[in-house]
Amino acid sequence: MNNPFFKNYGPFKIKNLLKELNLDNSNFTNDEIILDIKDLVTSSKNHLTFFHSKKYHREASATKASYCVTFKNLIEYLPNSCKTICVENVLLTTSEITSKFYPESINDDFDNTVKEIKKVKFENSVQYGHNVLIGENVKIGKNCLIGHNTIIEKNVIIGSNCSIGSNVSLRNSIIEDNVSILDGCIIGKKGFGFFPNKQKNLRYPHIGIVFIGENSEIGSGTTIDRGSMSNTIIGKNTFLDNQIHIAHNNKIGDNCIIAGQVGFAGSSIIGNNVMIGGQAGISGHLKIGNNVQIGGGSGVIRDIPDNSKVMGYPSKDLRKFLKENK
Amino acid sequence: MNNPFFKNYGPFKIKNLLKELNLDNSNFTNDEIILDIKDLVTSSKNHLTFFHSKKYHREASATKASYCVTFKNLIEYLPNSCKTICVENVLLTTSEITSKFYPESINDDFDNTVKEIKKVKFENSVQYGHNVLIGENVKIGKNCLIGHNTIIEKNVIIGSNCSIGSNVSLRNSIIEDNVSILDGCIIGKKGFGFFPNKQKNLRYPHIGIVFIGENSEIGSGTTIDRGSMSNTIIGKNTFLDNQIHIAHNNKIGDNCIIAGQVGFAGSSIIGNNVMIGGQAGISGHLKIGNNVQIGGGSGVIRDIPDNSKVMGYPSKDLRKFLKENK
Amino acid sequence: MNNPFFKNYGPFKIKNLLKELNLDNSNFTNDEIILDIKDLVTSSKNHLTFFHSKKYHREASATKASYCVTFKNLIEYLPNSCKTICVENVLLTTSEITSKFYPESINDDFDNTVKEIKKVKFENSVQYGHNVLIGENVKIGKNCLIGHNTIIEKNVIIGSNCSIGSNVSLRNSIIEDNVSILDGCIIGKKGFGFFPNKQKNLRYPHIGIVFIGENSEIGSGTTIDRGSMSNTIIGKNTFLDNQIHIAHNNKIGDNCIIAGQVGFAGSSIIGNNVMIGGQAGISGHLKIGNNVQIGGGSGVIRDIPDNSKVMGYPSKDLRKFLKENK
Repeated sequence: MNNPFFKNYGPFKIKNLLKELNLDNSNFTNDEIILDIKDLVTSSKNHLTFFHSKKYHREASATKASYCVTFKNLIEYLPNSCKTICVENVLLTTSEITSKFYPESINDDFDNTVKEIKKVKFENSVQYGHNVLIGENVKIGKNCLIGHNTIIEKNVIIGSNCSIGSNVSLRNSIIEDNVSILDGCIIGKKGFGFFPNKQKNLRYPHIGIVFIGENSEIGSGTTIDRGSMSNTIIGKNTFLDNQIHIAHNNKIGDNCIIAGQVGFAGSSIIGNNVMIGGQAGISGHLKIGNNVQIGGGSGVIRDIPDNSKVMGYPSKDLRKFLKENK
Repeated sequence: MNNPFFKNYGPFKIKNLLKELNLDNSNFTNDEIILDIKDLVTSSKNHLTFFHSKKYHREASATKASYCVTFKNLIEYLPNSCKTICVENVLLTTSEITSKFYPESINDDFDNTVKEIKKVKFENSVQYGHNVLIGENVKIGKNCLIGHNTIIEKNVIIGSNCSIGSNVSLRNSIIEDNVSILDGCIIGKKGFGFFPNKQKNLRYPHIGIVFIGENSEIGSGTTIDRGSMSNTIIGKNTFLDNQIHIAHNNKIGDNCIIAGQVGFAGSSIIGNNVMIGGQAGISGHLKIGNNVQIGGGSGVIRDIPDNSKVMGYPSKDLRKFLKENK
Repeated sequence: MNNPFFKNYGPFKIKNLLKELNLDNSNFTNDEIILDIKDLVTSSKNHLTFFHSKKYHREASATKASYCVTFKNLIEYLPNSCKTICVENVLLTTSEITSKFYPESINDDFDNTVKEIKKVKFENSVQYGHNVLIGENVKIGKNCLIGHNTIIEKNVIIGSNCSIGSNVSLRNSIIEDNVSILDGCIIGKKGFGFFPNKQKNLRYPHIGIVFIGENSEIGSGTTIDRGSMSNTIIGKNTFLDNQIHIAHNNKIGDNCIIAGQVGFAGSSIIGNNVMIGGQAGISGHLKIGNNVQIGGGSGVIRDIPDNSKVMGYPSKDLRKFLKENK
């Protein structure tokens, strides 16, 4: 699927691209073209991908990408069909190349294409409040409600029977049917990803989106950042309370219940039927199984297997926590 | 008192109501009418109430309700004047009956009765900013200030000398005199209460309101949810800092001082003169005494007696905490 | 420098001022004038300052203030050039005197001088969204973007190449070049400082401002309160994630990286190159050194020396924390 939110400024000749980045381009010819940049799994022919950790060696060996930015010691895992670009900092080079393809994904300047909703024609009738602003090419399903002062930026897709509250800001997002988004949510902005740099940190492009599954509810004042190379996903019938922060690339399953002020640091995968108590924090790059229950205030810094109940900072087995803290 | 915020669609014949819910109605006649649904304490003749935990047996034995939804093993506590409806899930049945009486309390769709404030006539002069929206039947006292982009939904009552900031959203709330509400607060939305259900969770109706006592102050970006069957209450001269989350049914006393990012899980009772440090979390259904001090970052999961000082996760005696963590 | 945000209602005759506060004024003549109230370091001739803790004895002995509110037992540290006003509660008296000089710094009523931005003339061209409101005497540099519904109150100064998001509220702030402020931030409101008082707490005046250094970024829904007697400062190239709360008088260094939902209780000094994980809390009046790393969820209640890595609640050496929690 082409990214509906960010214009692809490619294709680029790989020889030129590497030259612009001051990288060795002697292995490439003027005929070699890159159409897009994708992750190991979703790449196909004439795509460029990146491979920065042995952890992903299975995905690497099966990639269909024609080109891959990687480290010297990881080359062996890549198939022969994939030509390698060896660099010192894979993520930095990937970020720089992504910025060439999608320069508009770096900053989140306000959408200056928005118009007052009364000047926008929709296929379906939409009930809306005062001062609602709608960007170009926004799609809204049947029987939707959109509250006062809400801003829906360009290309956002909203399903049927959705209720969007007041003072909401929505961008780079796809919302399925029967979703409620309460007042003051900020959904789809760039994630907190960048390369530290003394004068001015270098922003990592965020070409992912936010996807919210059907029947879900997002509480007031919650922030959900879009993904960097993949998407941030909220499953079906998952309910979030107020003031939750979901950082980039998190994938949250179906039927989850997440209480107020919980925070997710980014790139974690949360199973189905997971319940999380208020103010708990979930570190980055974790895997939380299905049917897991996490007590309020917990700090989760390790993977959690299916059907576990944990609590504590750092979190441990719930019974152990309660026993130790009688 | 009738609920000023939600229209009562009753009275209903109890025989019909139970039939619609597929419950046994053979003990009731066509003459028996329910006027309203209330809790054990505030119910009176021809009201229906509910009793789901032995914890409330004293209130149950004194209830003036004519009808009560309860469990078989709790019937013995109810007075003879109260006819019982025995069910498998008291809260679920109560929720379903409440939804019949107050269907508009389930969702929080934006108030489409609001008008620009300049088109609204008030008894007192009100000083206001740009783009202020006011719902039907809103009452505002003398010498009030209302900031830009603020939305005050239908039936809200605000006392005299109040200062409401910008970008505030107020609904289902009664605010006393001399209250300050700072920018970006969201007050009076439905609480995070529902019955988990695989396809689509079943929302619990929230017919309670938010009540804020005189001389109090609510910091920026704070969310206060309204109650389900009872009210969410902030006492007099209680000051809340920024980004606090107060869930449904909490009752917070007078002269409390609550620092930034504190969260209350719901249905707890907090005494007077309580001080709570930043980022502390208070679990649900607790009783925190008067003059209690709770250290920053604490996780409170048990009742706290009057005059205690606690800290820790879970919280313990402050001196003990400091000694153990020298 | 004169305070650009609050009108100084002085000068006052010290004899009259003390009389109004029911304090002994017998040591002063009708000729003695106070021009302003400042802290020990920035005071000069005909200024009044305050000295309430031995901790600041070095600053006290070097002060150039002509008058100082202090305790009897601290008089010995002050130079002979400084006349003393001995009181029972230094901060309360200081607060009362500050209120005389700067009565408008106590409350944060909405700025009723704001106009729609299209009616405002700027020296430089500014690109802006719908419903943007600008107060009197606001200065905005070159190439700035200001999102929808944003309110910039009187006297705020914004540098060049800044991107301000939508639904932002900015007051009493100076923003340097190349700063990004994302959606929903509330910056520059009064801090959570007051004297508890049974009927109505007494608000401490906040005459400080918020200063944000160049190249910094402030995440969505973040609140930064202005200082009381000094300023709240965010250094250069410091990046804050979403839903952070920074209370009054905190000074955060350059090149810091602070993850989501972190909270600062007030008046702490944070060094350069400090990294803080999500949901950590920093108590008040602490000194955190340069290059410090604080793990997510930590509760910091003591000073931290340069180059330390800490984690835990309360925070301790990171390796110790991880070892104890294997």
